[in-house]
Parts: sequence; C-alpha cells; structure tokens
Amino acid sequence: MDHNLKKLIEHALSEDLGHGDATSEATIRPESLSVAAMLAKQDLVLAGLDAARVVFLYLDPGIKFTSFAHDGDRVSAGTEIAKLSGNTRALLAAERVALNLLQHLSGIATLTAKYVEQVKGLKAEVLDTRKTLPGLRQLEKYAVKIGGGRNHRFGLYDGVLIKDNHIKASGSITKAVENARKAAHHLLKIEVETSSLDEVREALLAQAEIIMLDNMPLGLMREAVALIAGKALVEASGNVTLETVRAIAETGVDFISSGSLTHSAPAADISMKIK
Amino acid sequence: MDHNLKKLIEHALSEDLGHGDATSEATIRPESLSVAAMLAKQDLVLAGLDAARVVFLYLDPGIKFTSFAHDGDRVSAGTEIAKLSGNTRALLAAERVALNLLQHLSGIATLTAKYVEQVKGLKAEVLDTRKTLPGLRQLEKYAVKIGGGRNHRFGLYDGVLIKDNHIKASGSITKAVENARKAAHHLLKIEVETSSLDEVREALLAQAEIIMLDNMPLGLMREAVALIAGKALVEASGNVTLETVRAIAETGVDFISSGSLTHSAPAADISMKIK
Amino acid sequence: MDHNLKKLIEHALSEDLGHGDATSEATIRPESLSVAAMLAKQDLVLAGLDAARVVFLYLDPGIKFTSFAHDGDRVSAGTEIAKLSGNTRALLAAERVALNLLQHLSGIATLTAKYVEQVKGLKAEVLDTRKTLPGLRQLEKYAVKIGGGRNHRFGLYDGVLIKDNHIKASGSITKAVENARKAAHHLLKIEVETSSLDEVREALLAQAEIIMLDNMPLGLMREAVALIAGKALVEASGNVTLETVRAIAETGVDFISSGSLTHSAPAADISMKIK
Amino acid sequence: MDHNLKKLIEHALSEDLGHGDATSEATIRPESLSVAAMLAKQDLVLAGLDAARVVFLYLDPGIKFTSFAHDGDRVSAGTEIAKLSGNTRALLAAERVALNLLQHLSGIATLTAKYVEQVKGLKAEVLDTRKTLPGLRQLEKYAVKIGGGRNHRFGLYDGVLIKDNHIKASGSITKAVENARKAAHHLLKIEVETSSLDEVREALLAQAEIIMLDNMPLGLMREAVALIAGKALVEASGNVTLETVRAIAETGVDFISSGSLTHSAPAADISMKIK
Amino acid sequence: MDHNLKKLIEHALSEDLGHGDATSEATIRPESLSVAAMLAKQDLVLAGLDAARVVFLYLDPGIKFTSFAHDGDRVSAGTEIAKLSGNTRALLAAERVALNLLQHLSGIATLTAKYVEQVKGLKAEVLDTRKTLPGLRQLEKYAVKIGGGRNHRFGLYDGVLIKDNHIKASGSITKAVENARKAAHHLLKIEVETSSLDEVREALLAQAEIIMLDNMPLGLMREAVALIAGKALVEASGNVTLETVRAIAETGVDFISSGSLTHSAPAADISMKIK
Amino acid sequence: MDHNLKKLIEHALSEDLGHGDATSEATIRPESLSVAAMLAKQDLVLAGLDAARVVFLYLDPGIKFTSFAHDGDRVSAGTEIAKLSGNTRALLAAERVALNLLQHLSGIATLTAKYVEQVKGLKAEVLDTRKTLPGLRQLEKYAVKIGGGRNHRFGLYDGVLIKDNHIKASGSITKAVENARKAAHHLLKIEVETSSLDEVREALLAQAEIIMLDNMPLGLMREAVALIAGKALVEASGNVTLETVRAIAETGVDFISSGSLTHSAPAADISMKIK
Repeated sequence: MDHNLKKLIEHALSEDLGHGDATSEATIRPESLSVAAMLAKQDLVLAGLDAARVVFLYLDPGIKFTSFAHDGDRVSAGTEIAKLSGNTRALLAAERVALNLLQHLSGIATLTAKYVEQVKGLKAEVLDTRKTLPGLRQLEKYAVKIGGGRNHRFGLYDGVLIKDNHIKASGSITKAVENARKAAHHLLKIEVETSSLDEVREALLAQAEIIMLDNMPLGLMREAVALIAGKALVEASGNVTLETVRAIAETGVDFISSGSLTHSAPAADISMKIK
Repeated sequence: MDHNLKKLIEHALSEDLGHGDATSEATIRPESLSVAAMLAKQDLVLAGLDAARVVFLYLDPGIKFTSFAHDGDRVSAGTEIAKLSGNTRALLAAERVALNLLQHLSGIATLTAKYVEQVKGLKAEVLDTRKTLPGLRQLEKYAVKIGGGRNHRFGLYDGVLIKDNHIKASGSITKAVENARKAAHHLLKIEVETSSLDEVREALLAQAEIIMLDNMPLGLMREAVALIAGKALVEASGNVTLETVRAIAETGVDFISSGSLTHSAPAADISMKIK
Repeated sequence: MDHNLKKLIEHALSEDLGHGDATSEATIRPESLSVAAMLAKQDLVLAGLDAARVVFLYLDPGIKFTSFAHDGDRVSAGTEIAKLSGNTRALLAAERVALNLLQHLSGIATLTAKYVEQVKGLKAEVLDTRKTLPGLRQLEKYAVKIGGGRNHRFGLYDGVLIKDNHIKASGSITKAVENARKAAHHLLKIEVETSSLDEVREALLAQAEIIMLDNMPLGLMREAVALIAGKALVEASGNVTLETVRAIAETGVDFISSGSLTHSAPAADISMKIK
Repeated sequence: MDHNLKKLIEHALSEDLGHGDATSEATIRPESLSVAAMLAKQDLVLAGLDAARVVFLYLDPGIKFTSFAHDGDRVSAGTEIAKLSGNTRALLAAERVALNLLQHLSGIATLTAKYVEQVKGLKAEVLDTRKTLPGLRQLEKYAVKIGGGRNHRFGLYDGVLIKDNHIKASGSITKAVENARKAAHHLLKIEVETSSLDEVREALLAQAEIIMLDNMPLGLMREAVALIAGKALVEASGNVTLETVRAIAETGVDFISSGSLTHSAPAADISMKIK
Repeated sequence: MDHNLKKLIEHALSEDLGHGDATSEATIRPESLSVAAMLAKQDLVLAGLDAARVVFLYLDPGIKFTSFAHDGDRVSAGTEIAKLSGNTRALLAAERVALNLLQHLSGIATLTAKYVEQVKGLKAEVLDTRKTLPGLRQLEKYAVKIGGGRNHRFGLYDGVLIKDNHIKASGSITKAVENARKAAHHLLKIEVETSSLDEVREALLAQAEIIMLDNMPLGLMREAVALIAGKALVEASGNVTLETVRAIAETGVDFISSGSLTHSAPAADISMKIK
Repeated sequence: MDHNLKKLIEHALSEDLGHGDATSEATIRPESLSVAAMLAKQDLVLAGLDAARVVFLYLDPGIKFTSFAHDGDRVSAGTEIAKLSGNTRALLAAERVALNLLQHLSGIATLTAKYVEQVKGLKAEVLDTRKTLPGLRQLEKYAVKIGGGRNHRFGLYDGVLIKDNHIKASGSITKAVENARKAAHHLLKIEVETSSLDEVREALLAQAEIIMLDNMPLGLMREAVALIAGKALVEASGNVTLETVRAIAETGVDFISSGSLTHSAPAADISMKIK
C-alpha cells in the first residue's frame, strides 16, 4: 500500500500546492516553528491517521507527529487526536491534504460502523462494493474494514461475479457457471446474481459457491435463504440503507453489500489548529 | 483538463480491471456486441457525462456513445441520459468506473444547485473550498460550477488568503497584508480572514481586497457587512448548511463558501442497463 | 492489457533506441520503404504476434503488418508468419524489440505445449507459477494459456495459498485456514500446501478447497489423492519436468504446476528479413 | 543503474502484490519476525545478489540482509548465499520477486561462464547481443559481464553496425561506411556485417574498424581472418552454441557474439527458506 | 519545489548517464575518493547552488557538499563557491548536470541584477514573463527573484491578462473585463493590455486593476501614466533592454517586464576541479 | 525522438496551463475560430518548427498548421514562417509553449550557423558539448546539427573521453587508454584530453583514436597538430568564441567544440499574431 499511498499523496500535494503557497511564503518566515493539534469535532470512528501522518512527513520529514488515537478507535467530539510540531510553513501546506484524506476515510469508517451496529447479534456481515472513487479504492476499502465491515472483491480481476448480462451471453446460469469454472483460475469461487427462486435453484444446481439475491423483497429473500439452506453462501444486495439493513440481516443472509458505505458517506468533521 | 482526466481514468480503470475481468472473459465471447442505456434513477443535475464518455472510449474507441442530455441539465428520475452500443466486454469493463465518476460529480452538482436555489434573488454567490478528494479537485470544482456555484481559488498557489496563523506570524493584519502585497505577484488580490469587527476594521485599513467573515453569528455578520460598506468584497464561511445558507446570504455578503458541496455530497443514483 | 503492453513496449523501444539509431540514420534515407518477412526458423507454437504488431505500429502507424498465422497456431520451420511493409528505418528500429517479445512468448508457448502433450488423455491440467520475469508476468501467463496450459493465481493478491510459514505462524493448518476464511474476501478459495498424509488429513478436516502436494514422491502422491477422494481439488508441485510430468499426472491430481514453463523456456527461433 | 533498478523492482513488486498479500495478511501477525536463508540448489555463478537485496530493502528497510557471497562468485549446490532477518510478512512478500531476478541473472552468468570456459586460452571474447527481454537489458548485460563475457553495444544508439539492409540502402559497403563516418559522432567506430570474402575485402578498403563474419562456415571464417590480418577487429556471429564456440574461436576471431546467453539461459535454482 | 526539482534532476542525470559512464567505469576504481572545488570564473550573482547540491546528493548521498556562498550572493571571479568530497565516480557523473543547472540559473540571476541595477532609485520593479524553457519555469523564475526581480504570474492559470485577441473576441475592453470579473475566481485581479490612450481610458473605466502599456514609445507611455494617475497599476512591456530600461522606468510605471531575463541570459561561467 | 518530445511538450503545457487558462475561458467562446501567422522578427536559421507543430496538435488535433519554411532554412526578418487556423482558445493556449521551444532552438541554430560560417573553407567541424539544459539535450543537439554543426557524444554512456581526473586515477595516459580499451565496448573509440606536447605524445603512443587539445594557445595547438600528423583525429576545446574560432580552425584541427552554442545562445525573435 505504501507505494500507491505515496503516489496519491504526492499528487494531492502537487494539486494543492502547485508552484508554491502564495500566502505562507509571503507572511511566514521559512524557519518559523509551530505546534498544532488535530481535533475531532464530532463523534467518529477514526480511519486514515497513518495516511495523514505520511502527508506531513512527505512534505517535511522533520515534523513530529504524535498520535493519541489509532485507526479504528471510536473518538468523541472534542478529543485531541494528534499533536504536531515542526516548520510552520510545512504544517500549513500539508494541513488541507491530510485533513481531506482523514475526514473522508473517517467518514466512511463512521458510516460503516453504524451499519455494523445495526446488524449486531446476527450473522450477516456488511460488505463494500466497487462503487468507489477513482484512485481511492484501496483506502476506501481499508476504511470500511476499519469501521467493522468486510471487503468484497477489489476489482473485476480477483473474483467471479456472474450477473444477468453474463448469463444472457452464456445462454443460462448453468452454462455461465460452467464457463467460469473452466476459465477462471482454480482459486476463485463463483458467485451468481439471482432475482427469482428459479434462478436461485439453477445456481444451486450449477454449484455456485455464492448466490447473490439482487433487490429481492424481504419475503422472497427469506424463501431464497431457506431454499439455499447452507449449500451456498448468500449475499443480499440492493436498497440497503441504515433503516433496512437489520431486516435484511434477519432473513438469514451471510453478507449484505452497500455502495453507500463508500460513495455517500459524509466527511467526518476534524480540524487542525495551530496553538 | 484532458490530459489529467485521461490519467485519472487510466488509473481508475487499472484499479478496477487489474490483469483482466475474470467474469466477462469467461462468459462473454470477445466479439459479442450489446446496446446499453444509462438512466437517472433520481432527480439530479447532471455533471460528468463527458468524463463518462471518455472512460468508454478510452477502453474501446469503437463504442458509440449517444447522449440525450448535457452537463448542467436538470434531469428527472427515469430519464434516459445516454445510449451506448459496442463490444459487450468493453461496455461492462468500463461501466463501473464511468458510473462512479458520473454519480459523484452529479451528486456534487445536484447538492450545489440546492444551495444556489436557496439564495435565489440575493446577490450572494455559493463558493466551493479546497476540501476536495485527492486527485479529484479539478473535476469536483467543475461539478460545483455546473451546479451553479462559483469556484474559489484552486489551491494555495493561485490566491492569497491570510488566516489567523499568517497574521500571528506577521505580527498583525496590517503587516501580513503588507508582506503579501510585496511578495505575491501583482495579479493576485488579498483576502483576510476575520472573526471580530476590530479585525474587519484593520483589514479595511490595510486595504485587503476581500474580507472573510469566519464563523460569525448572523448579527455580527450584518454589522461587518455594514462596516465594510462595499470597500471590500465579503465572503462568509463556517457552519454553512442548506438550512442556514439563505439567512447568511441575507446579511448582504458577496460570497458564501462551504466544504460540504464537495466533501459530503451523496452520489446521485444513475445506472446502466444492457438491453 | 493494452495499457500495460503499451508501456512495456514504450520502455523496450526507448531502451533499444535511446537518442536514435546511429546506423540507420546515417545510411538509410528517411523516406525509404521496404517489405519484410517474419519467418519461423523452428517448429513452434506461436504467441505474441499481436504484441509484435503493436511494437511496429507504435513506432510508425504507417507500417502495414499482415499476419499469416495466429497466436496458438502450431507453425513449422520455414513458415512465413507475417509480412510487413513500410518505412525502412522504422522497420529496422522496431525489429529487435518485436522479435525479442515474440521469441520469448513463443518459447513459453512451445514449451508449455510439450508439457500439455505429455499429459494428454489424463485429467491433469498444467499450471504456471509466480516464477516470472519482472514486468512480464501478464504476457508470460498469456503465453502459457496459448500453449494449452492454465493460469494459477496472478499474484499474492488474488488467491490464498497457505504454505508452511503461514501454518507455523498461525499454529496449525486448522487455525491458518480458519484465519484465512475470516480475513480473505468471500470469493477466494483456500489452498493449503502439504508434504505428508497427516497434513493432507488436517487440510481436509479444515475444509481447504484445494490441497497442494509439495515435492511428494509418486507413491505418497497416489495415497494423498486416494485420501482426498474428490473432497478437494489437488495440485502437484515440485520437480516437475518433461520427463516426470506424465507419471505425476497419472497419480490422479487435478493440476500440475511448474516454474520452468516461464523461467527456463528457451527463446523460439524467429527472424525477420528485409526483401 | 540504481534509478532504473528501483523502478523495475517497484513495478515487479506491484505486479506480484497488487492490493496486498491475501494469505500473509490473514495468517501472519503484522509484527511477526523471522530469519530466512537463501540457498543455491545447483552449482552456479552468482549474479543479482545486490538487486535481490534492494528488493527486500525496498519493501522494508528494516530487513537485515547479510550476504555470504558476491556477484561473480562460483557457488556450489547447497551453499548458503545470504541470511535475512526481519518482518515475516515483508520477507514473504519480497521473496518471489527477489528470487525471480536472482535466478534469472545467475542463470545468465552461469551460462556465460560455460561459454567463456570453452574458449579458455584463446584470444576470442564472448559477447552478448541486443536479444534481451523488455526492460531487462541493463541487468542481463550486467549478468553477462559477471559471467566473464563482454558487452556489445547497449542499443542502436551507441554503436554503428552496418548490416545488409544498410548496405543495400546506401548502394555499397564503401558508400555505407562513408555515410556513417560523416553522420555518426566521431567517438563511434564502424562495424560492417559481411558474408563473403568479397564483402570482407570491400569493408577493409572502406577502413571499417570492425568486421563481422555472419554465419560463415569455419573454413571461410579462417580465410576471412587471414585476409583481415589485424587491419580490423573481427566478430563472429551466428550458430554459436556451447558445442561450436571453441572451433569458432580457433579461427582467430576477436569476438564471438551469441543471443542465447540472454534469451535462452535457464533460471539458476536458488531458494529461500524461513528457519 | 522539491518534488519537481527531484524529477528534473532525475531526468537530467538519466539523459547524461544513460546506461553508465563509459569512461569512469573503465578508468576509476569504484571505491576511489576525491575532493573537488567549485569556482566562479566570472563576477556573478549566484543562483541554483541548492539545486546543484541536490544533484550530487541524489547520485550519492555520501557526498559531502560544503558551500561558501548562498543563492543571491554577488560572487567575484575566482571565488571558491563550494567544496565537495566523496566518491570520485559519483562526483564526475554529477558534475555536468549540476553545473549546467547552476550556470543557467546564475546566468539569469546575474542578468536580472543588471536590469535591477539600472532602475535603482526608481519605483519600477523588473518582472519576468512566461518566456521560459520547457520544464524550467519554476527554477528560472526563482533565479529572477534571486537576482532582485519580481515574478509575474506563473502561467495562464493564476492571473488574468486580457490581450488584444481577448478584447476582439469579447467585443470591447469593457466587455472583456466584465466577462473576466464574472468568470475568474474572486482572488484574481484583472490586467488589460493597451496600445493607445483610448484603450487606456477604456480600461480605466472598466476598472481594470492593472494596465499594461504594450510597446509604447516613451512619450506615449508618460501620457498614459499621467492619465492613469494611480487608479491602476501600470506595467510596461516590449523592447526592454539594458539600454532602454531606465528611460522606461523614468516614465513612472510600476513594473517593467522582459522575456530576455530568462530566454537570452548567457550561462555564467562556473567550473569544478578535482583537486 | 517523438516519445520524448511528446512528454516534454505535455510537461511544458501543463506547466503553463495548470488547471486552465483563466483569461481565455472568461473572454473567448469555446467554439471561436481564428487564423494566426507566425513571423520571424529577425534574420535566423529556423529550428524546431516540427516541434512547434506538435505542440499545437497535441493541444487540439483540429488545428491546421501550414508551414512555409523548414528547419534549416535561413529566414529573413519579416518572413511568415507558418499559418495556423483553428480553435481560438487552443491557439492561444499553445502559443507560448510553441514559441518558447521554437525561439530557443532557432537561437541555437542561428548561433551555430555563425560559427560554421567563420570556419568556411577549412576542414574543421564545429561540435556541441554536454553543456545543455536539463531535459533539452536531444532537441538542443538537433538544433546544432540544423545550424550546420556536428554532434559530439550525447552523454557519458556513448563515448569514451579520458580527462585529467581519469588519467590521475589510472596512473598515466597509457594506463587509462589501456583500461578503457578493455572495459568499454568494442564499438567505441577513445579520446584523450591533453594540455601539453608530452601528453599528446603519450596519447599517440597509447593509440588514442582522438586527441583533445584543451585550452592550448594557438602556437602550441599548431605544434600538436604537426606532431599528431593524422595519426589521430584532433579536437580543440576551450575559449572558443565567434572571434577566435577561425584562428583555431586554421591550426588544422579536425573539430572545435564549444558549450556556448547551447548554453548561451540568445532566443531568436519569432512571434505569432492572430489575424
């Protein structure tokens, strides 16, 4: 991760700094030193503190970054998360990029934790999706894990998920699973998307290892789970919200996936103040 | 923009595709052709349709992408935004990356349009901030503009915004403005952040071209606007929400800036279906 | 693949051409045109012809490249594989890079085909490994597939393969499989490396989906296959040569993996002649 | 070399690791430490040990890498080449990439040493060619040197080698050499490829500094060497194998070049074991 | 700046070193150490010494670089600027790249200082332009500042400068300024290029913050300055030479910009000698 | 060259354009079209016109670029060099980058032509050096050739030039040449720098193919040329100016090299006007 993270940070800093910080270079002496505090301004699950640290150290290895919390900690509003000391210009130049990352990732972790909280006591695990922002997938999926969720496949390359288009193209679920079994490497399981009990039955017969129930009403979902009866893992998908997630989990599915964990989590409120 | 956009898309596709699409390569013949429709599943302000088109064409220049709407259009739920036809594998491989971009940018444009709607009839313009995601600033700021907002400076390099730390480091607002006037290039205006009427007064005397009222209560803001009386432009910042933005605009400020336009806009719901 | 391939070719051309072709620039007029033939100088399985075409077109899109064979074809010594016509300087500048790729990939495909030939009539499939050259994994694995082999996982990221070190670190096969089941995403199967019947038994109990028999003598391998009895897939690994591969296949394993397919395949002899 | 090597290693690691090591992350604690040994499993000439070290240190600068041999050493089967200690996950993640490089380069050095051994006592030096793999030329040529061979030009840019196509394009050997003398910079010698005594004569008259005898039978080669009589350096090329190389050297040529040193050297067998 | 500078240096070193230093590798032992001195061979204003240091340390962090002067110092012919000690091969490999940068930047600073000297006692400041070499703008503008000049905008993105084409396209100066005021972000001032008093008048009415007098004769320039009378800043441009710059400054303009500072400054003569 | 040139242009455009052209985007409609002329404003030798064309086409492939002259042409002040038509915004955005390149390269070609003119009728050829700007070596050396000069080696990698430090490190000229002969590849000649007749004698005895006379007074140079008497090529170096170059050539040397061709050539005056 380090190499990709470094490139992302390099890019983000260059995006923000361009040919230089017009204000700081005019008003702050190059040798000026400061101490700063990073503060949670809302209750949140922290994610991205290491990434934030890397931003500061990338810009100036002389900055001292002392953290008082770790990724995954539940932090309440008003908590001091970290203390920084070092060159003032560097602290101010890195501040925005570091906070942008930290607020986004903590926002995702915090939202994920709410979903996970909703399904407490049930076996269902909360999964992310491929609905992530360009260049940020690895970090966003990391934040989901930090929030208590579990990662789905990372991309099209590390998992087989047969959807309606693949079924149509192959002729049938049976044929599609067979094709995938032959072509994909032998360490990959096969998941099939279904939207009716007939499709569930065919997927079972084809020995799909995982069956996705796509946008099914709760009743139908319960029937599907009963029909599958442990012969395959079951993933529920579609119309998953904080309000509906527990009822979905109660149908007995193994996994519930939701794009909103990553594409619609509001930023967590975190600020940095020079003392 | 084209060069950066191409790099971003290249990176996003490589993030999603890695060494290949395990499912499509197993189940869809290489020469298979399909037609697909892109649909708005909620009312939204469209942004990013050109970027989405570039994603598809980057992967396969043979794809035909016909759009029925343009960036900036208000599109209602159910509208077909675009029709695509071409190689099935390429359509499916590009789908997620294209939608991730389009949903994020349309989400920002849609939220921005709501803010702008709130201040209708008043002179205040809605501004974005530097609270953007790594690598996406240019696109996110584009979406704000498409939604009817106006862009603030793009980074630390193309505008002078003197905040409390700069003031402390220089000794006073007067001294900080003076330093900036000397050091920044002569095409840049100078904005000063203030949080009291005394500071506003000093900024006026120092001939700051723009005065930011940071987190001021409405009453104080009104006094500040009266005090400034057109001698500088006025930007309000802090605690701006869809609920508060109109009241803030009614104080008479010229600009209202809010990070939530970019860092907390939920993705707009848009889907693609193979016919 | 196109994007990575283009980068590889760009790099290879720049490695060979540097600031220019000292000989051609001195002795061949810029506008000179030629026709060239690409010839197989040994019996071989062709792989990489599309990559070779891309090299020529990258250097000069005006070159006409007509191929008389396809990747996967068995081609006998003396066969004309392709005809090229276009700018002489460009043909000569691209020649070496194109042939280097084509000869290496055809070498791999040709060797793989010999292994596959050996196990004809048996169920065992021939697999590659991660023993590939830096930057060439995707192409080398493609060549294995072209030669009739099957790909193993592409890297550490898209498959779980528990080896002795992982077992030691977890405490036992049982514990290692359990850990992997929880942490890896739900679309990945779990393979366990074993070197004794006891380990095979434990892997079976832990419900490993695939069991690797590492460097086992043929007799032991047969016992292991009998013990597993279809409850898991079986991969044989270690000391696989053209001489031993059939005997290994006859033990009844599902897969036989060998690094020599990629790391020790001699280049196939292919040349290009200007007519 | 360091800069290119670092990029190559970065690429190779990213190729192998992608978004992470699914197995180690699941089964090995992040803070786990191990000691490992690198062992030669055949007699070999070592090349690439420094490159291997860089791989480990790139991934984790905390790894301690102690080598017991140097590039160029003849190492016999069973020898411990290096001892490594450090973070277990990092050791396992770097292992394959480091070994892939080390085995390939040692394979080339070992094969080159066999050629050099064959010509012992004669003046002929063994040369490599431009028949190298994309991105690996510098390392492969380094391995040839380590094995006792000598490098030919690195690419088309740092040497003039006039082949039949250049001769045809210029009209004659005489004209081609003349053109090259005028156009190439004054620090480059000129080599001419010949396949008959007449061509050798013309090359001599044109004052070519080096004459290549291309695919000549031994008898003809001897005549050519006698004709040249020290007035130019002589390079033999074509059909060079371990079996033929000594006879070729005995004709009195100065250099013998062979593509097989780099394009067909089998990997040397080297392994790493965690203790 | 550090990140861009590092990339530039990396590129320059790779341009000069390619696959290695043929001479030093042949004649200097790898472990050889030397001491070297960097000397000014003419009177000059030093610029780029830190960049030069980075070149040496990039190639070999073990080199000790002790400087006896700083960027901005006036240094007379014969002065020892820096002492270096370390690996001989590294010193020689970095020498040319370091000197090329240092001589170019000191050349710019030295020429700029001459212009600044000419306008001593007058209020006019000497500005650079966008007439810089590809990839070197930031460094060249830095050298102008070191020489006592002031930077103009860095590129098309951080300043509004309305020229004749923009005026034609908008219909009038008035309209062009109005358009720019609306579209550019609120921290940018607006400069208008004029070539007659009528245009100056219109620019003033449109409240342009800066007025450029383009290629005006001195008499006209004086009239323009009188007309503007402090209501806008004034920049003179065109036909600025060391001979004309004082007369231009005496017209009362605020800024004088000249492309020759960067595009035609002869290299300052600086050498390095191994002791 | 095309690949490097494209990267350079990409970088230069991004340096100038950043996130966009603030002025044109505000004042010129996106669909506006214009016609422009490129004019020589002084007598010059043209170099870089193709590079300039690439800049415009890179930014907008729809631009039509018609040239009325070619690289190498002597063009007099007032001549229209090229006509451009196409999108106004694109023309203005590419203008500066294209002119910066064209003016710099034409400046070098023009200066080189003056040196070459000085030595007319004598055998000496004018050479460039490694004193070039970072990233621009290939283009600058191209401009020297266009101006009638000849290129020296491109970098440290494609020529052996033994200087005093190499001699000291090897012990003697004899030893240094011997070392180089053994280590450098057999297609490279060996040049030795000398500053006395004794050194010239030793270089001759060591059979150096080229002897450089470094900073020798004219008398000494003549003696050296007489001593060498055609047994090696002779290069004069040091204190070469337009005033001294003919006298140096008259000593009978084969080559005269001067850094000022590239590091101190003033930009040629070329402008672009929208009609």
